[in-house]
Amino acid sequence: MKDNFCIIMGGGIGSRFWPFSRETMPKQFLDFFGTGRSLLQQTFDRFSQIIPIENIFVSTNEAYAHLVREQLPELGDSQILLEPTRRNTAPCIAYASYRIQAINPKANIVVTPADHLILQEQHFVSNIQAGLKFVGKHPALLTLGVKPNRPETGYGYIQTDEVGDKNLQKVKAFTEKPNKELAKVFFESGEFYWNAGIFVWNVQTIIKAFREHLPDVATRFDQGLPFFNTDKEKAFIDDQYPICQNISIDYGVMEKAENVYMLMADFGWSDLGTWGALHDLSEKDDNENATLRCQTVFYESSNNVVTLPENKLAVIQGLDDYIVAESDNILLICKKNEEQRIKQFVTDVSMKYGKKFV
Amino acid sequence: MKDNFCIIMGGGIGSRFWPFSRETMPKQFLDFFGTGRSLLQQTFDRFSQIIPIENIFVSTNEAYAHLVREQLPELGDSQILLEPTRRNTAPCIAYASYRIQAINPKANIVVTPADHLILQEQHFVSNIQAGLKFVGKHPALLTLGVKPNRPETGYGYIQTDEVGDKNLQKVKAFTEKPNKELAKVFFESGEFYWNAGIFVWNVQTIIKAFREHLPDVATRFDQGLPFFNTDKEKAFIDDQYPICQNISIDYGVMEKAENVYMLMADFGWSDLGTWGALHDLSEKDDNENATLRCQTVFYESSNNVVTLPENKLAVIQGLDDYIVAESDNILLICKKNEEQRIKQFVTDVSMKYGKKFV
Repeated sequence: MKDNFCIIMGGGIGSRFWPFSRETMPKQFLDFFGTGRSLLQQTFDRFSQIIPIENIFVSTNEAYAHLVREQLPELGDSQILLEPTRRNTAPCIAYASYRIQAINPKANIVVTPADHLILQEQHFVSNIQAGLKFVGKHPALLTLGVKPNRPETGYGYIQTDEVGDKNLQKVKAFTEKPNKELAKVFFESGEFYWNAGIFVWNVQTIIKAFREHLPDVATRFDQGLPFFNTDKEKAFIDDQYPICQNISIDYGVMEKAENVYMLMADFGWSDLGTWGALHDLSEKDDNENATLRCQTVFYESSNNVVTLPENKLAVIQGLDDYIVAESDNILLICKKNEEQRIKQFVTDVSMKYGKKFV
Repeated sequence: MKDNFCIIMGGGIGSRFWPFSRETMPKQFLDFFGTGRSLLQQTFDRFSQIIPIENIFVSTNEAYAHLVREQLPELGDSQILLEPTRRNTAPCIAYASYRIQAINPKANIVVTPADHLILQEQHFVSNIQAGLKFVGKHPALLTLGVKPNRPETGYGYIQTDEVGDKNLQKVKAFTEKPNKELAKVFFESGEFYWNAGIFVWNVQTIIKAFREHLPDVATRFDQGLPFFNTDKEKAFIDDQYPICQNISIDYGVMEKAENVYMLMADFGWSDLGTWGALHDLSEKDDNENATLRCQTVFYESSNNVVTLPENKLAVIQGLDDYIVAESDNILLICKKNEEQRIKQFVTDVSMKYGKKFV
């Protein structure tokens, strides 16, 4: 147990849920379903059941450090790893791994996004425990794969070598988000799993993998070996992190490494990556309207997802298949099937109004 | 000039513009077009050009007295006539007329709603001046008629005896809001004018008309003759007003009287009675979207009227012909051609949530 560590990646901007999620208050810090706990807090709650609290690290942007401190007062300052700039997941994970190695060179680590939704917590806990046990014995890079229940086009997929329900399978390939036809093929083949972006490995295994597949990143961090977990770490990171390669762990390591295994996960999972996914997961009325946090009264309306600040009421007549989201000083009304354009809307708004509304 | 008086009726609830207009902040107190002056203030501004400020009276409900005081600090407390209960326009006008008679028995009075929109102020001023001059010489009940520019179904009409552009015409009949076919006939005949609900008369003429056509109301106020404009007036009004007949001046007096004339008005006028009217009158973008008070960015959207609090931004995609209105803790999204149902929505909301959202 004391060798188990966790890295919660909480530096994202979450612009897909704008204006509900904002640059100053991204998705992971929001209480999407009005449960009283933000997605980050829920992630922490899950891991605190299996990992000593002092072994839980949150990596985030300096801009969000105060939000992490506020939401997770259980963490000491040294457990919040500050990225001076955004450099995607590979440098983020490398930094956390080198830090953890300096604390415990035998560490087994779970790496997880801060902003995913897990419905069946007990299943999740046993999956993760099985994974930690495995990587303590084998020099494997473990990625969690979720058995698809529909031909989803919004996720990347993991292809495994064998068909079947074996809990641990050798990974054959990672694939990008497929189009509709391909998603259907993936779904029906039984060989493909959703890539949940949750990883489990021993600290030595991942650092070795960095040295092998991302030598640019590894060399840089190797120079800092004397500084990790000392008062010189911050200066070193502030100096070196910004000039690290901007690359994801999937692209930089997982797709290149040989020793990659998939742990089949059977907890209800969503990356909450789209309003559509959020709509699917939410409680809905008889007309498939989902209301998050606020009150609503609908007339001749269906398939909408509506979120306003708590204590607000929306009275909606004659609206089908829309997103209605309000936060602070912005109201968005957008057809659900046009939601991929929201990022462009944010860009347009910031071109027109500067920083005022983003 | 010193014989000219004005009664601004400002006691309405304005539920048609809910939630923009609220029971606690009705339409007349709102700055619809972001000009910096509410409709009540604009009404006051128009009359203060032709009527001594000390001769301007605002009648309102006790609940709104503080709003009138705030918005019109020019008025002394005695110029705000408080109706203890809502009793429609006839008792309201009777009360103000008896008060004004006690101050100046030769008074010529303009009676006007507080919440109409007048676009051409100079025309309005000369129309009113002509009316005041006329009623100073003739015992006539004058009502302002607006030459229709379209077959509007949202207004009552005045039929006159003669076709033509004579400024003063004898009224033949008042009609209720017509259906589409009838509105077209009215419009094309040239005999019909929109009833603007603005009246001009001498105080003796209107009190005589009350005695003749609404003796119930007149008898009651006649008993109070010694009290008007004294410190006993309030007790008298609080006692008698609530048991007055609940009836409009149109139905109770104008439709029955013989000496009714119409002054043809040629200022741009709207009672701002509907969102549709508001949309018509507002500045619009190339896609006929009207934005009031807030900022908006539209994509594939047309014919909408959007009003959010100042400093708010609405990003709207794929919406045609809707009302989007937010105020305080309520957002309304409703098809423009369903706006007559808004009163029902308010009732539904108050059934469901009590006083919280009305």
